[in-house]
Amino acid sequence: MIRWHRDDFETMEKRFRTNFFNSLTGYKAATLIGTINAAEQTNLAIFSSVVHVGANPPLVGLVCRPTSVPRHTYQNIKAMGYYTINHIHHTFFEQAHHTAARYSAEVSEFEAAQLTPDYSDLHPAPYVVESPLKIGLQFVEEHEIAANGTIFVVGQVIETLLKPGSLCHDGFVDLEQSGIVTISGLDSYHRTETLARLPYAKPNG
Amino acid sequence: MIRWHRDDFETMEKRFRTNFFNSLTGYKAATLIGTINAAEQTNLAIFSSVVHVGANPPLVGLVCRPTSVPRHTYQNIKAMGYYTINHIHHTFFEQAHHTAARYSAEVSEFEAAQLTPDYSDLHPAPYVVESPLKIGLQFVEEHEIAANGTIFVVGQVIETLLKPGSLCHDGFVDLEQSGIVTISGLDSYHRTETLARLPYAKPNG
Repeated sequence: MIRWHRDDFETMEKRFRTNFFNSLTGYKAATLIGTINAAEQTNLAIFSSVVHVGANPPLVGLVCRPTSVPRHTYQNIKAMGYYTINHIHHTFFEQAHHTAARYSAEVSEFEAAQLTPDYSDLHPAPYVVESPLKIGLQFVEEHEIAANGTIFVVGQVIETLLKPGSLCHDGFVDLEQSGIVTISGLDSYHRTETLARLPYAKPNG
Repeated sequence: MIRWHRDDFETMEKRFRTNFFNSLTGYKAATLIGTINAAEQTNLAIFSSVVHVGANPPLVGLVCRPTSVPRHTYQNIKAMGYYTINHIHHTFFEQAHHTAARYSAEVSEFEAAQLTPDYSDLHPAPYVVESPLKIGLQFVEEHEIAANGTIFVVGQVIETLLKPGSLCHDGFVDLEQSGIVTISGLDSYHRTETLARLPYAKPNG
């Protein structure tokens, strides 16, 4: 095994360091966050920091870096109170990745990435038509991480849209059947192959 | 598309609801968190809520439910100040899943799951020998999510252990080459197949 510690981390070249620590946390959800501002300009940004926070009430967390590329996302969430999470299908992962480019405020990433916005009557944030699994959220609370200034944003799920064939009888949503991809590091996209669904774990089971 | 909103969520049967909302956030890192208490009892618990928080300093987040099964993990992190994240290889995902069973405090999940603890000279928390990618962390800060009482725990990476063949020249760690699995929902395990690593996104690129 290669064993590194703090002194080794400090001598890493910047890009190497970014790739390394973004890989370390394993496979991540590959999602597009859809928002809109008060002037009705839409924004779409790729995020790999979506995390389950709870099922009752249904809560989802998101790590935002207010000073980096997708800052419009955080500003729009705070200003409007709503946002969408749209899972990335293998047919448009390259378009989704392209939303990370530094466009000016006037350019919507929907147009730049050739993806289609769609709206619900429940909230103003745009969904991605092409996504097979979409979540509408209302902002609930935020926590600033003192150690680096990132913000942990928590939202409550107020709407879900999914393909009928992906829903199992027990509530499980089959991401693989839906063609949803996963991301590792900053830029590596993967499809999946199921090993198994395992039964509820019991001692000596 | 199946479209559901709050009223639909409230009528869901408990297990259905848990499966559904645990699936919604997409693919997740499948990890074992290793801890120890002051009496030197080790604990090992499966978590799918690890998230990247930053690369400089290297920070990792973890959603803990203090009142659910892996509560020893949170108690041990707070008491000792250190913990490990061990990625799950496809050869032991069933053993890893088994750590979720409700063992009494006297039983170490290392023994119950037939996995092997190993130690570093940098901190007291146990690693999993069988894991191809291991991270040692020091507790930094915590944030209680008011909406449901879960805790967002942030730690700083102080040590990493990885297989030489998995490290690319640019710092990217190849999880797929390492045989690391991803999890969806509460109980579905997957291997991956790479689609592509994409170049840094630029406008009109």
